[in-house]
Amino acid sequence: MAPSVAVENLNPKVLKCEYAVRGEIVIHAQRLQQQLQTQPGSLPFDEILYCNIGNPQSLGQKPVTFFREVLALCDHPSLLEKEETKSLFSADAISRAKEILAAIPGRATGAYSHSQGIKGLRDAIAAGIASRDGFPANADDIFVTDGASPGVHMMMQLLLRDEKDGILCPIPQYPLYSASIALHGGTLVPYYLDEKTGWGLEISDLKKQLEDARSKGIDVRALVVINPGNPTGQVLAEDNQCDIVRFCKNEGLVLLADEVYQENIYVDDKKFNSFKKIARSIGYGEDDLPLVSFQSVSKGYYGECGKRGGYMEITGFSAPVREQVYKIASVNLCSNITGQILASLVMNPPKVGDESYAAYKAEKDGILQSLARRAKALEDAFNNLEGISCNKAEGAMYLFPQIHLPQKAIEAAKAANKAPDAFYALRLLESTGIVVVPGSGFGQVPGTWHIRCTILPQEEKIPAVITRFKAFHEAFMAEYRD
Amino acid sequence: MAPSVAVENLNPKVLKCEYAVRGEIVIHAQRLQQQLQTQPGSLPFDEILYCNIGNPQSLGQKPVTFFREVLALCDHPSLLEKEETKSLFSADAISRAKEILAAIPGRATGAYSHSQGIKGLRDAIAAGIASRDGFPANADDIFVTDGASPGVHMMMQLLLRDEKDGILCPIPQYPLYSASIALHGGTLVPYYLDEKTGWGLEISDLKKQLEDARSKGIDVRALVVINPGNPTGQVLAEDNQCDIVRFCKNEGLVLLADEVYQENIYVDDKKFNSFKKIARSIGYGEDDLPLVSFQSVSKGYYGECGKRGGYMEITGFSAPVREQVYKIASVNLCSNITGQILASLVMNPPKVGDESYAAYKAEKDGILQSLARRAKALEDAFNNLEGISCNKAEGAMYLFPQIHLPQKAIEAAKAANKAPDAFYALRLLESTGIVVVPGSGFGQVPGTWHIRCTILPQEEKIPAVITRFKAFHEAFMAEYRD
Repeated sequence: MAPSVAVENLNPKVLKCEYAVRGEIVIHAQRLQQQLQTQPGSLPFDEILYCNIGNPQSLGQKPVTFFREVLALCDHPSLLEKEETKSLFSADAISRAKEILAAIPGRATGAYSHSQGIKGLRDAIAAGIASRDGFPANADDIFVTDGASPGVHMMMQLLLRDEKDGILCPIPQYPLYSASIALHGGTLVPYYLDEKTGWGLEISDLKKQLEDARSKGIDVRALVVINPGNPTGQVLAEDNQCDIVRFCKNEGLVLLADEVYQENIYVDDKKFNSFKKIARSIGYGEDDLPLVSFQSVSKGYYGECGKRGGYMEITGFSAPVREQVYKIASVNLCSNITGQILASLVMNPPKVGDESYAAYKAEKDGILQSLARRAKALEDAFNNLEGISCNKAEGAMYLFPQIHLPQKAIEAAKAANKAPDAFYALRLLESTGIVVVPGSGFGQVPGTWHIRCTILPQEEKIPAVITRFKAFHEAFMAEYRD
Repeated sequence: MAPSVAVENLNPKVLKCEYAVRGEIVIHAQRLQQQLQTQPGSLPFDEILYCNIGNPQSLGQKPVTFFREVLALCDHPSLLEKEETKSLFSADAISRAKEILAAIPGRATGAYSHSQGIKGLRDAIAAGIASRDGFPANADDIFVTDGASPGVHMMMQLLLRDEKDGILCPIPQYPLYSASIALHGGTLVPYYLDEKTGWGLEISDLKKQLEDARSKGIDVRALVVINPGNPTGQVLAEDNQCDIVRFCKNEGLVLLADEVYQENIYVDDKKFNSFKKIARSIGYGEDDLPLVSFQSVSKGYYGECGKRGGYMEITGFSAPVREQVYKIASVNLCSNITGQILASLVMNPPKVGDESYAAYKAEKDGILQSLARRAKALEDAFNNLEGISCNKAEGAMYLFPQIHLPQKAIEAAKAANKAPDAFYALRLLESTGIVVVPGSGFGQVPGTWHIRCTILPQEEKIPAVITRFKAFHEAFMAEYRD
C-alpha cells in the first residue's frame, strides 16, 4: 500500500504557506553554527550573528529582574513562607506574587485557567490598558494568549471562509500574516507602505486596493495595521491613525491592530497611541468599529519571547461572535499561566515608591536607550554604503534598508535560482555569519530589494557587525558592479 | 454599511466545531459560582465541584516539589549565585537547573528557541522515551508543544485537505479530535469502543468502518487511538496494540497515538506500552509506519495543566513531510520555555540516590494511589445506583458510566430541547453543584446515554460527592421512573 503521507498529498494550504523569518537562510545558519562547533576555524567567521528575528534575550539582553522574581515566587509559592526569601527577593516582588496568587483560584499556577485567562490577571491587564489610554478597558474583552501569534490565527480562522475572503495587509508585512492567511485559505489583499515618505500609510492607496479587490469579487473582511511597523520600524502619526479608524468604520472592516512594539519608540517626536484610544478620542464607541489589539510580552524592553505571553483586546463584536472566539480559545483550554502572569506584569510594572522601582527604571531605560543608539548606528552605517538607503527606525526592532542591487547581481541570483535579495542575504551569511531576512519574505514593491536586520546585537558588538557588513557589501559591489 | 462580522458570516468550520468539555454546562457552572459569591446561600449547595475536566491542581492537588524548584531556579537564575539558595532548594534541583541552563543557548530562558524546542531538552526527552521503551529515540523526532493540543491541531492541519479526507476516531472520543477535525474541514470516521467488553477496541469494527468510509469516497488518512482511554479509562492489552499497529501498516494509515495518560494506570494487571515500543517489538522500523505519539505535562501524577508543556514524537515520515511539520511549528515560533523544561523533567524525574528522590517518590505514589482509591470508590458508587453501569477505570482520570434513563426523562429532555444526558447533567449541576460532561459531547452508541466524571475531587471530598450524587440520582429516578 502506498504511504498515505507523501508530501503531494498534504493540505495544499500548508504547502503554500511560507514563513521567511525561520526559512531557508535561518536553517542554513543553524547548519553553519553546528559546523563552527564541530570544525572550529573552518569558516571565515567565528560566530553566527542572528539579526533575523526579534529575539533580544538570545543575543544577551538580560530579563527584567522584577518580572523574574515574581515568576520564580509564583512557580514555587512555598518560598513565600521562608525567612530567607526576604533577603533573596525584593519586597514588592514578594507582595506582587502574593497578590497574583490570591487572584488565582486555589492559588493553582499549575491548573488550566478560564480559556480567556485568569480573571484577576485580566483585570490587571485591563487596568494597565486603561491607564495607558485614558479610556476604560474591560477584563471580559481580554483573551490572554501564548504570545500574539495564536490570537492572530484565531481571528483569521474566524473571519476567513474561503479564498473569496480577503484581508488587507501592509506590504512589507510581518510574514505571520501572510502565513496565517494562507493556512486558513483566504486571500491577502496588499496595500503598499510608501518607502519615500518613511513607510507612510496612504489612505488613498488603501481605498484603491480595497476597491480593486472588491471588483474581483473578494469580500474584504479586515485591515491589518502594524504600529510601530514590522519590518519597517515606522510609527504612525495620530492624524493618520484617525483616518485609518474612519476608513474601517466607513468600509465595514475589522481593524486588526498589531501593537506589540508599543513600548519600542526611539524618536522624541513620535509616541505610541493605541487604535482603541484613537477610536474613543474621535467619539467612536463599541458599536462603531470591531477592533482587535494584539500585545505580546516578547517585544517591548522586556523581550520575554520564550515565555509566550500576550493578549488580544476585542471590542465592537456582537455577543454571538464573541462566543465563537471563546469557543476557539477553549479548544486549546488556556494559554500558559507563566505567560499570563508576565502579561499582567508588563502592563503593570513597578511604580514610583515601590522598592524595585529605581532598579526597574534603570534596566528599562538602559535597554531602550541602548536600542535607540544601536538603531541609529546601524541606520547611519547602511546609509553610508554604496547603493543602500535606509529609513529611520522610529520604533520596533528592525531596519529595512533597500539594497539597490546591480544588474549583474540580479542575473547571478537568477542563475542560482534565488530571489536577488535572498542571494544577497545568503552571500552575507556565508561571508560574515550575519543572518538577515530577505525582503522578499515580507513583500516589497516589485523590482526593489531589501533586507530586514534587527537592531538587537549587543551594543559592544555593533561596531564589528558594521565593519563586517561594510567589508562584505563593498566586496559584493566590487564583484557585481555594472 | 452592514457590520462585516455578523455570526452568519463567520467561517462555517468554526461555527460547526463543538467542545463540550468547556461547553454550555461549564459556562452555566461558572455563572452559578459567581452567584454563590454574590448571593451566598441562594443555591442548594455551597461550592461548585468541577468533575468536567482533567485539571487536578484546580481541585487541590499540589505540584511535585522538585519540578517547581527547578522551574523557579530557571526563571530567576541569579538565585544560583546566592548562598541562601542552598538552604531553600534541594541539591539535585540546583544541579538540574544548572544542567538545563547549560543546555539553553546563552542560558536565555526568555528567548525564542528552535521551533521544535531547545535541543538539549529534546535530548533529555528522547533519553526519557528510550529508557521507558527500551528502544532508541531521537531528539530530531521531538516537537515540543504547548500541551498536547497544538500537536494534534498541527497533524490535522497537515493531513486534512477537505471533507473527503477522513480520520478514524474512537467513539466515545476526547472532543479535541472532533473539534480539530471540524476546524480543519475534514471528516470524522467513527469506530466504536465496545462498552460490554470494558471499552474494547475491535479490529473487525475498525476494518468495517474503514471500508464503509472508503466506499463513500473518503480518503482515510489516519487512525486516532487514545491509550489509556479518554473518556473511557481503559488500558489496551499488548496483543490488541500489536493488531492496531499491523492494521495501520496494512491499510497505509498514520497512527496518531494519544498517550498523555501513560503514567495514570490504576490496576495491577495492566501496564502502559507506547505504540512505538509495540511497533519496534514486532520488528517494524521507521519505514513501516508513520506514527505520532502525543505526551503532555498536564496529565500523569504531575497534572501541570497550566504550564502548557508537552511534545509529539514523529517517526516514519519522509524528510519533505517533516519539513512541512517544522514549517507549521515555526509559524508560531516555539512553545513556551517553562513548559519545555517541565516536559524534560517529567520524562526524567529524580532517580534513586538523588537528594529529592524519597520526597519525590512519596509525592508521586501518594497522588497515584489516592487516584486509584478515588476511581474505585466512584466506580462502586455508580454501580450501586439504579440504572447506572460503570466500567472499571483502569487508567486516565475519568469514569464514563452509562445512565439508563427512563423514557419519561428522555421525553422531559426533548420538551426542554436538550439531549437526554445533557438534561441529566444540567439537573445534576443545579441540584448538587457537581459538573460533569454529557456523553453526547464525546459520542456514544445511539440510544445510550453517559456522563464523563473525573476522579479528581480531593479524596476527603469523595464521600460527599457520592452522597450528593446518590441523593440527586434517586430523586431524579423517583421523578421520572417509568
